[in-house]
Amino acid sequence: MLSQLLQPEIRALIDERNLSTLKEILSDWTPADIADLITNLPAENEQVIIFRLLHQDLATDTFEYLDFDMQMNIIKAMGKEEVASILNEMSADDRTALLEELPSSAAKQMIMMLSPEERKIATSLLGYPENSVGRLMTPEYIAVKPDWDIMQTLEHIRKYGKDSETLNIIYVIDAKGKLIDDIKIRDVILAPLESKIADLMDKNFVELNVHDDQEKAVEVFKKYDRVALPVVDALGFLIGIVTVDDVLDVAEEEATEDIQKLGGTEALEEPYIDTTITDMVKKRGKWLVVLFIGEMLTASAMGFFENQISKAVVLTLFVPLIISSGGNSGSQAATLVIRAMSLGEITLKDWWRVMKREIVSGLMLGIILGAVAFLRMIVWTFFAESYGPHWVPIGLTVSFSLIGVVLWGTISGSMLPFILKRLGADPATSSAPFVATLVDVIGIIIYFGFAIFLLTGRLL
Amino acid sequence: MLSQLLQPEIRALIDERNLSTLKEILSDWTPADIADLITNLPAENEQVIIFRLLHQDLATDTFEYLDFDMQMNIIKAMGKEEVASILNEMSADDRTALLEELPSSAAKQMIMMLSPEERKIATSLLGYPENSVGRLMTPEYIAVKPDWDIMQTLEHIRKYGKDSETLNIIYVIDAKGKLIDDIKIRDVILAPLESKIADLMDKNFVELNVHDDQEKAVEVFKKYDRVALPVVDALGFLIGIVTVDDVLDVAEEEATEDIQKLGGTEALEEPYIDTTITDMVKKRGKWLVVLFIGEMLTASAMGFFENQISKAVVLTLFVPLIISSGGNSGSQAATLVIRAMSLGEITLKDWWRVMKREIVSGLMLGIILGAVAFLRMIVWTFFAESYGPHWVPIGLTVSFSLIGVVLWGTISGSMLPFILKRLGADPATSSAPFVATLVDVIGIIIYFGFAIFLLTGRLL
Repeated sequence: MLSQLLQPEIRALIDERNLSTLKEILSDWTPADIADLITNLPAENEQVIIFRLLHQDLATDTFEYLDFDMQMNIIKAMGKEEVASILNEMSADDRTALLEELPSSAAKQMIMMLSPEERKIATSLLGYPENSVGRLMTPEYIAVKPDWDIMQTLEHIRKYGKDSETLNIIYVIDAKGKLIDDIKIRDVILAPLESKIADLMDKNFVELNVHDDQEKAVEVFKKYDRVALPVVDALGFLIGIVTVDDVLDVAEEEATEDIQKLGGTEALEEPYIDTTITDMVKKRGKWLVVLFIGEMLTASAMGFFENQISKAVVLTLFVPLIISSGGNSGSQAATLVIRAMSLGEITLKDWWRVMKREIVSGLMLGIILGAVAFLRMIVWTFFAESYGPHWVPIGLTVSFSLIGVVLWGTISGSMLPFILKRLGADPATSSAPFVATLVDVIGIIIYFGFAIFLLTGRLL
Repeated sequence: MLSQLLQPEIRALIDERNLSTLKEILSDWTPADIADLITNLPAENEQVIIFRLLHQDLATDTFEYLDFDMQMNIIKAMGKEEVASILNEMSADDRTALLEELPSSAAKQMIMMLSPEERKIATSLLGYPENSVGRLMTPEYIAVKPDWDIMQTLEHIRKYGKDSETLNIIYVIDAKGKLIDDIKIRDVILAPLESKIADLMDKNFVELNVHDDQEKAVEVFKKYDRVALPVVDALGFLIGIVTVDDVLDVAEEEATEDIQKLGGTEALEEPYIDTTITDMVKKRGKWLVVLFIGEMLTASAMGFFENQISKAVVLTLFVPLIISSGGNSGSQAATLVIRAMSLGEITLKDWWRVMKREIVSGLMLGIILGAVAFLRMIVWTFFAESYGPHWVPIGLTVSFSLIGVVLWGTISGSMLPFILKRLGADPATSSAPFVATLVDVIGIIIYFGFAIFLLTGRLL
C-alpha cells in the first residue's frame, strides 16, 4: 500500500519537523491511506502529530477509518473541543461503533459533548440491541415524495445530499413518512427532467427492520446485491439506512467468530496479535480445561478394560490410531455442517437428510480406513511378524472398530450442531476438539467391545 | 422471504395453468425473489414454466441470480434463440462466472451464440487467470474526460448509462484512455451545472490491476469502503470495473474454503447439500487416509514402549488424555494463526512475535492442565485408591507430560501455518486434525520419556 511504501520519506519529514510539507502531501491522500499510515507509525506522539495536521473534514474521515485503540489514543491526546468537533462530524454509524466499545461512563462523557441534535441520534442508535441492524444504521439519507418531479428531486439532493451517507439510492416516503419505494439514483439521472418520482416507482423494494439481527442484513445484502438498504421501524416508518461497507465488516467478523469457535477456543474480541496473553490464555484455557475434564472419561473407560489390557498389551498400541480417526471424521462432519448452517444452506428441518448422507459417507469412509488398517497388518506380519499368531483376529478387531468409530464420528459430528441449534445455542460451539473428545470415549468402548467379542478365548 | 410465503398460492396458479395471472404477479417481483421462487420449486418443468413467463429484461436479470445448476436446467429447456438472447443481455461478469463453470466444449458453443461484440468481451475476460480480478470484471462503466462540464457529463450518462453496471462512480480518463481519477456520482449531482469535471477531480483514486488476485480485491474494498473499483491493465489503461456485490461473494467463498480446510477436508466446490456423496467421500477420504497413515506412527511409537507398558499397564490409561490435550491446544493455535493470516493481521515476518506469544501461552495452559490432572490424582487416590502406592510419581509423570505436550502443541500449531506459507502452500491446510496427528506421535514420546525418567526403579 501507498502508505507503507512512503513511510521512510514520511518519517524523515516528521523527524525534521517539516510539518508544512507533510500537511501538503497528506491533503492529497485518501482517509484510508492516512489511517493506514497512522496505524503503522511506531510512536504514539507521532501518530498524534500526523493527525493534527489534517484539516477538519479529512481528520473526521480519517478518524472513522482508525480502529478503536487508535481512536482512543487520539482522543486522549486531543483537547475537548477538538474531540467534540470530530464526534459531531462523524457519521452516525461509525460513532455508534466507537461509543459501544467504550466503558459506559466514558461513552456518557462523549455523548455530552455532542450537539443536542447529534446527541439525540447517538442515544437512540445506542438504544437498539447489540448486533441489531439499529447499531449499523445511519439516519443520513435522502427521502423524496412521489409527486415530486426530477428537477425538484435533484434540487433537494443538491441541498440536503451533502450529509447523506450514500446518494446511490434515494427513498420514497408517503405523507406520513412510511417507506413506499426505493429508487436508484441512476434511474433519476436517466429520466427526463419533467417526469415524476411516481413514474419511476415500481413499489418493489427490500427493507430491513431495525430490530433484525445483523446476520440477517448480511443475507439480504448478498441476496439482492444492493449497496444500501433502508431500515424501518415496526410500523414501517423509514428511520435510517445501512450501507454495504458495514455489512462486509459484519460478514467477516462472523466468519472469524465461527472459525475461532470451530478451532476450540472462545472467539477473540480483538485481532489475534492485539489480544493480551492473559486474555488469550483465559479464552483458550477455559475450553481446554472443559475438554480435558471430558477427556478424563477416556482414562475411566480404559480403566474399565484394564484386565483385558494387561492380558493383551498389543491392543493398547492401536488406541491412539482408532480414537483419532473417529475424532478426525467427526470434525470433518461438524465443520461442513456448521458452515452450511451459517450460509443458510441447511436449516433445522434438514437434519434427517444430513443424517442419511452422513451415515452413508461414514460407512464408506470407515470401510476405506478399515481396509487400509488390515492391509497394513498383512504387510507388517509378513515382513516383521510383530503381532504374533493371532494377527488375523487382532486385525479384524482394529478394522471393525475403525468402521464403527468413523461412523460414530460422522454421525455425532453432523448431529451435534443440529442439537445445539435446536437448544438455542450457537452450533459453532460444537468445535472440532469438542466432537473429538466426545468420540474418544465411545471409541474406546467400541474398540474394546470388538476386542472382547473377537479375541476372548484367544488372547483374552 | 416473500417467495417462500407465497409458494402455495404460486403453486395453485401453476397447477391451474393460470399463467396470465402468474405473469402479472411476477412482473412486480424483484429478480432475486423470482430466482428464489424458481430455486424452491420442486419440479424442473415448473421452474422452466415460471422462467418463460418473464419478459426479456426481467428474465435476464433473474437468470443472473440463479445458481449454476439452475442456469443449466433453464438453458437445456430453452431454444437456441432464447439462450442467445439471454447470453447477449447478461452482464459480462455474471456471464464469465457461468462460462467458467462449463466444460470447455459447452462454453465454446455458448460463446459462438454471442454477437461479435459480446463474443470479444467474453473471450477476453475468460483469458484472465482463474481467481484474478479480470474474471470478476465487467467492461460496462461510464468514463468521462476532464474538460467536460457537468451538463455534458449528465447527457453522456443519460445516453450511455443504461448498460453500465453501476452509476455510483464514474471514471475520468485522459485522451489516451488512461485512468486519471474517479468521481462519485454524488459529487457530480451536487456540483453547479457549469463546473468542469476537472474541478471535481482530486487525482486521488484507488485502482485494481486486472491480474491482481481476487483476495486482494476483497482487501482493497474493505479498506477503502468503495461500492465499485476501476480495473486497469499493466499500462494503466482503464479496462473495466468490479462491483462490491461480487466481492461479498468472493469474501464468503474464501472464508468457507478456509473453514473446510481447517476442519480437515478438501474444500467442497458446491454447497454441502448439493455435493454428491461420492465427491464428498473422495474429498474427506483423501485427508482421512493421509491422517490415518500419519497416525500409524503412534502405534509404532507405542510399540517402542511395549516393554514399559507391560510392566505398568496403568500408564496406558492416560495416553488418550495426554495426546488429545496436545491436539486440542495445537488446533487452537493453528486456527487463530491461520485466520489472522487470512485477514492480513499477521504476515510471514511476524513469526517470531507469534512464537514468543505461543511459548508463553503454551506454558501457562500446560501448567493449568497439569495442575488439574494432579488435583484429580489426589482426589481419586484419597477416595478410591486406584493408582496404587506410586501415585505421586505417576501423577508427576502425567502433569509434566501435559506441560510438555501442550507446549509442543501450541508451538507446532502456530508455526506450521508459517512454514506452509513460506513454502508457498495454503496455510489453512494445516488443519486442526493435521496438527493433532503431528502432536500425537511426539506426545507419546514425551509421555513415556517422562515415565522412564520418573518411574524407573519404582514401577518400571
